[in-house]
Order: sequence, then C-alpha cells, then structure tokens
Amino acid sequence: MATNITWHPSLSRDERTQLRHQAGLTIWLTGLSASGKSTIATALEQHLLHQGLNAYRLDGDNIRFGLNKNLGFSQDDRVENIRRIGEVAKLFADSCTIAVTSFISPYRADRDLARTLHSETAQGSIDKPIPFIEVWIDCPVEECEKRDPKGLYKKAREGIIKDFTGISAPYEEPLKPELHIRSDKESTEESVARITKYLVENGYIPSAGKTSS
Amino acid sequence: MATNITWHPSLSRDERTQLRHQAGLTIWLTGLSASGKSTIATALEQHLLHQGLNAYRLDGDNIRFGLNKNLGFSQDDRVENIRRIGEVAKLFADSCTIAVTSFISPYRADRDLARTLHSETAQGSIDKPIPFIEVWIDCPVEECEKRDPKGLYKKAREGIIKDFTGISAPYEEPLKPELHIRSDKESTEESVARITKYLVENGYIPSAGKTSS
Repeated sequence: MATNITWHPSLSRDERTQLRHQAGLTIWLTGLSASGKSTIATALEQHLLHQGLNAYRLDGDNIRFGLNKNLGFSQDDRVENIRRIGEVAKLFADSCTIAVTSFISPYRADRDLARTLHSETAQGSIDKPIPFIEVWIDCPVEECEKRDPKGLYKKAREGIIKDFTGISAPYEEPLKPELHIRSDKESTEESVARITKYLVENGYIPSAGKTSS
Repeated sequence: MATNITWHPSLSRDERTQLRHQAGLTIWLTGLSASGKSTIATALEQHLLHQGLNAYRLDGDNIRFGLNKNLGFSQDDRVENIRRIGEVAKLFADSCTIAVTSFISPYRADRDLARTLHSETAQGSIDKPIPFIEVWIDCPVEECEKRDPKGLYKKAREGIIKDFTGISAPYEEPLKPELHIRSDKESTEESVARITKYLVENGYIPSAGKTSS
C-alpha cells in the first residue's frame, strides 16, 4: 500500500517549479477606484488559466470578507491590510501560482513593503527572491468619477465617505512601476495583452503557453 | 496584439476546476509537537506533486515568520493564528490547490472554526463548500516526549516553556476526524498512502494520478 512514495525532508522552490512546469510570481495592480483594476485582473487571470497556467486573483471579494474581515480603516489597519495581502500573494507565488492582486493600495510605502516581502527569503533557504511586478492602472480621476459604477465618488463628494482616494485622500503614483497602463486609452484586452507580453519577454511564462484543453 | 483574449466578468470555482483539471481542498493535520505532522505533510505534498497535482504546505516555516509574525501567545492571538491559517488554506483550495496545513491546533473550537470557514461561500456565489479533511496525527505524549527532536518537552518539564500542549496545556482530541493516523505505529509512507487512498476513494483526486514528467 505504501509503495511508490518518494520524498525528502524539504522541497526547494526550484524543485517545485520543475514539477509544476511553472514559476510563480506576483502581479500587483494599483490604481484608483473605478480605474479598471478588477476588470483587468479578472481578464488576466482567465487568460493565464486558458494558457494552462495556474493564476489566482486576490481582491476585495475574497480578502475583505475573509482573511481581513477583522480590519477597519485606521492607519494601522490600512498598513496591516496591504501587508497581509502581500504575504498571501507571496505564498501563492511560492506555490508556483501567478498571484494577481487588485487593490487600490494608494500609498507607496505599503506597496514597497509588499515588494520587499517578496525579496526576502527564509534564512538558510536556497530559494531566489520572488518576482514582484507592479502594474499601475492609470486613469484620470475625472474619468473614474464619470464612470463611478458604485456611486462611491458621489458619496465622497457629498462627504458621506471620508478619506476617499483621489478625492479626499491622496493616491501616491508609482514612481517606477514595471508597467504603466492608461486604462482610459487602452481596452481591457489590450491591457491584458501588454501584461502578458511583459511576462513572456521577461521569461516568466512560456511564449505560446501550454494548451490545457 | 489583443487577439485571442476571452474572458467574462467572473469565474466560478467549477470553471476553474475544469481549466485546472483539479479540484482544491484542505487537509488539516492536527497533533502534538513531535507527533510527525510536518514529516507527513512534507511527504504528502511531494507525493501529490509527483502525481502532477498542485499541493502546497502551510506550516510554521512559511506562516509564523510571514503572515502571522505579528501574533503572540495570548488567547486572542492563538485563535487569530488558526483563523488566518484557515482563511489562507481556503484561498488555496479555492484556487484548485490541495492545501496541507501542519499545526498543533490543539483546541476543538479553533479547528471547528477553520472547518466552518470552508463551508461558507460568498453571498450569491454558485460555488459549493470546500472539502475540509481533518487528519489526527495521533502519537502518545510519552512517545513524543521520547522523540523530542527540538528539546521542547524537556524545557516544558523544566517550566522554561509555559503552557506546552500535552504537558501543561490541553490537547483536545478530534472527536470525528476524517482520518485517524497512529503515527507511532504507522510509517510516514503508510500514513501518506492512507491519506491518498482516502482522497481517491472520495473522488477528490484521480485514482492513478496524472503523470507530470
């Protein structure tokens, strides 16, 4: 019954990558509310899955009401929110999945913390740092406010929502994002194609993709 | 450039399972320190990977110094520790990975909370609950104390470590674990074979496994 089970005390990420035929990484989307982050993240996730790669999206839907449901809107909680998302994305990337995060993440320091976590490896580990790709989903606030699919900008203007990014709280633009997408000028499909092209050109995914079905 | 990108606004877990050719679930190992949890988890993870399935282990090495590094040993922190692990395992299972968790998790209420999280799905979601397989790695405390690879039982006896599970803090045995493994009587290979057999018999993984290489 116990035949054919081979294992050794630890498993390096390189070995896992060989077994999974895929390397993990984190694609960190940042941008204003209604800039199109979630739409692009959803389309990107599906495009990668269709290529036979494992990808998983972390966003408000599966994080806010789960892992981070005990966090509020204080400064400390805001930092902890992004820290936890960074740590979980890192775990997914370590498991050879492409983690796609979709959060406003308006502060440079928070995004830089998430990036730094990815560059840290356990003491004594032979694993290399995990790639962290920051993608700025850039859409002028006027355009976001015009879209306003959830009526949040309206509430922010009326003062019903306080500290709303782009209206009454700052959005600190990325200084050196790996990719800068103008989502008011590029379609969702074009945005996904640009991100995919970047991944191929940097050797993160195969050029043709594997056919999964 | 943007050709051949097809997507729709959301992706159900069923669709993901089709694309990945694999369903996700959580295998929750619980047992005393030195009972053999980590060894079995490591061997199980590798055995599943060798079958071409995605599996990922959550344990002290990647959780304690990462996601949960801001938690201490208070009652509240202990509960929060297991809650976060439960939430992250659920995310992995949702991504069609087999999550294998390896933590003492000595309290029934904490393990039951992790199980309950897996049975909850987002409001309006068509997704089914995620399977949660509790595996009791059962080894008499006398045997664990004899093994004592890290000298922790000795320190607990000397009072250097307070509230040590099995010595000065309770271990609440699982009442209805899906699997009960006597790790003082079964080898690691036998334990992994038994867990694998359970997964096959319950339709969670294919019987022969896919060949990955």
